[in-house]
Amino acid sequence: MHKKNVYLVWLNWPIGAFRLNARSEAALKRLLPAGARLVVARSERAFLRALPEATHAICWNFDKAWFARAPRLRVLATPAAGRELLPTDAEMPPGVTRVNGAFHGQLMCETVLACIFAHARGLYRAYDFQREGTLWPRGEMSPFCSRVAGTHAVILGYGKIGRTIGARLEALGVSVTGIRRRNVGDLLPALKTADWLVVALPSDTGTDNLVNRRVLAALPRRAVLVNVGRGNAVDEAALADALRRRRLAGAYLDVFKQEPLTADSPLAADLPGLVRLPHMSAFAPEYLPLFFKELADGGWLK
Amino acid sequence: MHKKNVYLVWLNWPIGAFRLNARSEAALKRLLPAGARLVVARSERAFLRALPEATHAICWNFDKAWFARAPRLRVLATPAAGRELLPTDAEMPPGVTRVNGAFHGQLMCETVLACIFAHARGLYRAYDFQREGTLWPRGEMSPFCSRVAGTHAVILGYGKIGRTIGARLEALGVSVTGIRRRNVGDLLPALKTADWLVVALPSDTGTDNLVNRRVLAALPRRAVLVNVGRGNAVDEAALADALRRRRLAGAYLDVFKQEPLTADSPLAADLPGLVRLPHMSAFAPEYLPLFFKELADGGWLK
Repeated sequence: MHKKNVYLVWLNWPIGAFRLNARSEAALKRLLPAGARLVVARSERAFLRALPEATHAICWNFDKAWFARAPRLRVLATPAAGRELLPTDAEMPPGVTRVNGAFHGQLMCETVLACIFAHARGLYRAYDFQREGTLWPRGEMSPFCSRVAGTHAVILGYGKIGRTIGARLEALGVSVTGIRRRNVGDLLPALKTADWLVVALPSDTGTDNLVNRRVLAALPRRAVLVNVGRGNAVDEAALADALRRRRLAGAYLDVFKQEPLTADSPLAADLPGLVRLPHMSAFAPEYLPLFFKELADGGWLK
Repeated sequence: MHKKNVYLVWLNWPIGAFRLNARSEAALKRLLPAGARLVVARSERAFLRALPEATHAICWNFDKAWFARAPRLRVLATPAAGRELLPTDAEMPPGVTRVNGAFHGQLMCETVLACIFAHARGLYRAYDFQREGTLWPRGEMSPFCSRVAGTHAVILGYGKIGRTIGARLEALGVSVTGIRRRNVGDLLPALKTADWLVVALPSDTGTDNLVNRRVLAALPRRAVLVNVGRGNAVDEAALADALRRRRLAGAYLDVFKQEPLTADSPLAADLPGLVRLPHMSAFAPEYLPLFFKELADGGWLK
């Protein structure tokens, strides 16, 4: 390489966990080759101005038209696990590799554990009592507390993230059935004994409404849905209906068909057992440092 | 043994999880020697009436005066981990062994995991938003989400229950410092880097107010207290004060100095970060079956 590498970073997303700060910038610097140049852009304009020099671009979104201004680009990397904001494989010019973050599982699995343990150990129910001013609902809580070890989780979407979740659950005594999209025919029989249906599907190919009325009806009444993948995978009207009729003990949803969630969603209502999270299952101060480490470990920062 | 063993069971506690039902009775029967006689008492009177024949008594409470009516008794077993309801070691007559349940750790550790993961992943904060009708508090949630792996837990009370909790946390990437009562001098230095102070102390000897103002002041502001042991270990006025002044990020309390909790407790108030549970950390349908299995494994049902 006769010219030095230039690492152009534009990670200015409005969510704190997703934005470059002094700590994550320092973490990245420590991983770059000695003498490498790091350019931090704070706006699209600054990013495009620096793009002609960049050998590596690290950003949340990239328009395929921008490749024309990036003659030196070799690596286009995004922390996102989803592929919505970057050019598709077919749109990538020769000589440029697109790298999606795949580190999310280690954060997302903690959110899944949080939902599963909080549900099984009755934390939401106890908090409802607390907020209503009931000081000692001891007898009332007994029917709402159960053990996680010995339960059965079905994980729909068994790529890197799904398998990370599965391994963690197995280590805690949960028996796990992982279902890949291509084996979705195995789903219905597995649901009969499921305590947890964890969805970790991407949105890109053929996952619309995979969790439909029939799937929800195949779950036992004690079962709980946890969706940390993408909202398109769930038939939201069918889910709202199942919760309303208590055909399902709960739904912990981090993702929705329409985000931001709006009041006209069937899941904006106050439904029994519904817990909503605002697409935050991977939020953590370690988010970008884990991504940078993944890039370095994969040899993408050379 | 020329006369048959008689197993007298009186487990009629008003809490569902602690009461013998058809399922747990069947689990016990399967563990008894062939031909053994099982007597189930539903009241203290029925228990005392059957006591003269009993070789084994399994119950929640036992008055030391009752030994005079129990000439055949060899084993006095209670599911309780705490020793408040049975005679002390000194009060036991020769030839009778008192057995306390020690299986609770495998249930209680799940409650501790639930509290720690729910706190770190922001579930309580998100639920507050949900209950207030905020549909998409995404930017607001980012500062309240953190990773559990890589944090540091100090466990005060490192007997069987504390060690079970510690092992589970270590398996999830948490570094653990276990402090036994006799090494309580090691506590203050360990707290400097603590994210979690988990208390799993019994009430019986010298544990009053171990978690006092000085201990709370030694914790970082981000730290969270989880008490699943006994309420006497915490100086409740000092804790309420620390929460009110946000010297501590949260307190998840399953136990209190006075139970049932009453409105005059300093912890009956609505304090920032305070989550109250009604002494339920071991509640589960598996509670009695796990205890019976422990008795069989220990050779106490022979």
